[in-house]
Amino acid sequence: MTDTIEPMVAPAGLKNVIVADTELGDVRGAEGRFHYRQFDAIELARTKQFEEVAHLMLVGHLPGPGELAEFTARWREAQQLPTAVAAALPAIAVSGGERAGMARLRTAVSMLGSVDDFAPGWGSDAETVRDQVLRIAALTPVIQAALHRLRSGASLLEPRNDLGTAANWLWLTTGEEPSPERVAAINRYLIATIDHGFSASAFTARVIASAGSDAAAAVCGAIGAFAGPLHGGAPDRALDALDEIGQPDRVRDWVRATVAAGGRIMGFGHAVYRTADPRAVLMRETAQSLGGPLVDFAVAVESEVIAALAELKPHAELHANVEYYAGVVMELCGLPRSLFTPTFAVARVVGWGSHVLEQHRSTKIIRPIARYVGPPVVE
Amino acid sequence: MTDTIEPMVAPAGLKNVIVADTELGDVRGAEGRFHYRQFDAIELARTKQFEEVAHLMLVGHLPGPGELAEFTARWREAQQLPTAVAAALPAIAVSGGERAGMARLRTAVSMLGSVDDFAPGWGSDAETVRDQVLRIAALTPVIQAALHRLRSGASLLEPRNDLGTAANWLWLTTGEEPSPERVAAINRYLIATIDHGFSASAFTARVIASAGSDAAAAVCGAIGAFAGPLHGGAPDRALDALDEIGQPDRVRDWVRATVAAGGRIMGFGHAVYRTADPRAVLMRETAQSLGGPLVDFAVAVESEVIAALAELKPHAELHANVEYYAGVVMELCGLPRSLFTPTFAVARVVGWGSHVLEQHRSTKIIRPIARYVGPPVVE
Repeated sequence: MTDTIEPMVAPAGLKNVIVADTELGDVRGAEGRFHYRQFDAIELARTKQFEEVAHLMLVGHLPGPGELAEFTARWREAQQLPTAVAAALPAIAVSGGERAGMARLRTAVSMLGSVDDFAPGWGSDAETVRDQVLRIAALTPVIQAALHRLRSGASLLEPRNDLGTAANWLWLTTGEEPSPERVAAINRYLIATIDHGFSASAFTARVIASAGSDAAAAVCGAIGAFAGPLHGGAPDRALDALDEIGQPDRVRDWVRATVAAGGRIMGFGHAVYRTADPRAVLMRETAQSLGGPLVDFAVAVESEVIAALAELKPHAELHANVEYYAGVVMELCGLPRSLFTPTFAVARVVGWGSHVLEQHRSTKIIRPIARYVGPPVVE
Repeated sequence: MTDTIEPMVAPAGLKNVIVADTELGDVRGAEGRFHYRQFDAIELARTKQFEEVAHLMLVGHLPGPGELAEFTARWREAQQLPTAVAAALPAIAVSGGERAGMARLRTAVSMLGSVDDFAPGWGSDAETVRDQVLRIAALTPVIQAALHRLRSGASLLEPRNDLGTAANWLWLTTGEEPSPERVAAINRYLIATIDHGFSASAFTARVIASAGSDAAAAVCGAIGAFAGPLHGGAPDRALDALDEIGQPDRVRDWVRATVAAGGRIMGFGHAVYRTADPRAVLMRETAQSLGGPLVDFAVAVESEVIAALAELKPHAELHANVEYYAGVVMELCGLPRSLFTPTFAVARVVGWGSHVLEQHRSTKIIRPIARYVGPPVVE
C-alpha cells in the first residue's frame, strides 16, 4: 500500500537527484568532457559522420559499413513526408514570428504522430518505437527546411541521395551546393549537439515516454521544454550580442553595463562545466578553420568578456559556451539566424529519441507527488 | 559548485517523492476524497457551475457574481478561433484514426502557441500566463468540437452566449439543444475531472513550465503524457468492456478469463484510492438519475466484477473507478465514444493550466540527473 510509505522530500528542482540509469552518456563537468555511449563526443565529432553517431545513439553501437548503408537507407526512406503533413505545412509555416521556429516544428511533429497513427510505446517492441524515432528524426530537417523556404517564398527542395545529413541540411535550406568545408563544420556541430546529459528537454521526453506514450508525444514535450529561456540553447542571441557590441573596444563598457543591469551575457557560462565547454573549444577551432573577420572579432570579444567578467565576477569561472561559437560557425556556413535553433533541433531530436528508446525499456511511470500547503480543507 | 554535492538516488519512478509544494489541492487516498484549493471536489461538482470552479483553480478563489460575469466574458472572448488555426483544422481533422483525438488537439494547441506568439512564461507576469491558459482552455472545446464535426462532415457551430461550458460542449458537438438533466450531468463530470493531484500529465506540464516555456508548450506535453496507456483515463475502453460482456450472467466467466490472461479490467482499480473512487460514486449516482437499461446493466456488472475480483484477487481491494461510470454518463448524454476522452480534456486542460500558473511562481528549473551505467568511457 503506497499510503504507508513515508514520502521523501526532494531538493528544489530535483537538483542533483538521480532519477534514472542511462547508457547513453555522461557529462563530466569537472573534467570538461562528455561522451556518447563511452565514446568521447568531441572525438566523434572530429572523426565521424552524423549518421554513424545517430546509429550509435539509436541502435547502440557504431555501425560497420553494411550496417551504415542499411541505416542510411532506412533514414532516407523515412524522409518521405506524409501527404497530410505536407498539405498542412503552408499553414504552419506562416503561423507565428521569427522566433517560433521550434513551435512550428512541434506542430508538424505532433501531426506526424497522428497521421502515422504511432502506436503507444508501452507494449510495443523496441523496433516499433525505433521506427517512430527514426521517422521523426529523419523528417525534422525536411520539415524545418520546408517551413523555412515556405516562409521566404522559395520553392521546396527534395533531400539528395548523394549527400549526408549535414550536407543535405545546407542544401535543403539554402538551395546552394555546399562546400566541403561548410559540410564538415556543420557535421561537427550536429554530432556535438546530439545529446548533453540529462537536460530538461531529455527529462521531459522521458517523463512522457514513461507513461507509455509514443515518440511524437515525447518529442513534442521535449521541444516545448527546450523553448524555455531557462533551458538555454540560443546561438542566435549570442550572435545578436556580438552585433550589439559592434567593436572590440566597446566590450568592457558593454559587459560592465550588462552585468550592472543584472543581465546575462549570452554565450558565456554553463550550469555544469567548470572548465571550458568542450563544444565551445571545438566550435572555436572550427570557426577559425573557416576564417574571416567575424571569427577574429568573436575571438577578440571572447578575451575581453572573460577579462571583464574575471574582474566583475571573480569567482564565477565563466567561459564561452557552445552557443557562442556555434552561432559564428553557422553564420559562416551561410545559415540565416532564424535557422540556428532549427539546426540544433536536427541533431538534438536524435538525442531525445534515444532517451525515449531507453525509457521504454522500463515499464515504470515517472510520477512524483506534491505536498499540499494551502489553507485547511473545508470539512 | 554543484560537483561537490553528493547526488541523491531517488526511488524508481520518483514514487512517493515530493517534488513541489502546491495550493491547488490534494488527493487523500485513504479517506477516499480529493479537493481543489481546500474545497471538496465532489461537493463543488454537486453545487457549482464549471466556470466557477475554473475561476477557483485559475484565479485562486470562488468568484462573486461580478467576478464570475467578468471571468465568463473573458472566457467567451478567448473562444475566438484565430484564422490561421481555423484554416488548418480541416487538415488536422483528417489526420489519424479514431483514437488520435488527443494528438489532434495537441497539434491545434501547438499551432495556437505560435499563431498567438505566446511569450515565455519566465519573466512574464502572472496575468500574461493566465491569458495564455484561458485562451487554451476556452478554445479546447471549440477546437475539439470543430475537429469532431469536420471528421463527420457536419457543419461547424459557434459557442452560444446563453449556454455555460457544459451545455455549450453538448451543443457544439451534437448540434442538439441539450436537456437540463444532461447539462447537469456533464457539468458534474467536468468539475470532477479538472484536476486530480499530481498526475503524470500535470507533472509534465510543470517540468516544461519550469524551463520558462509558455503555456501552449506545457499543455502540449501534458496531452502527450496523458495519451500514455500507463496514465489511465479511458472511459471509452471501460464501455467497450461492457459491450464485450454483453449480459450480466457472462461477467464471472469474462472476469475469470481476463484475469487468467493477465489483462487489466478496464474501469476498476486506482493507484491511489484504497476506498471507492469518490468520482465513481458521483458518476454512478449521476448515471442512475439519468436512468435506463445501460445503467442497470452497468450496476449489475459492477457487483459481479467486484465479487469475482474479491474471489480471484482477495487482497487487491478493487473498486469501480471514475472511467467506469463516466463512460456510462457520457453515453447517456448522447456523446459518441470518440468524444469521451475529448470531454475529459475540456476539463483537465484547466487543471494543467493551473499547474502551469503555479509552477511559474518559481524560477527554478526541474532538472534532475541520471547515472551512467554503460561500459567504461574510452580514454
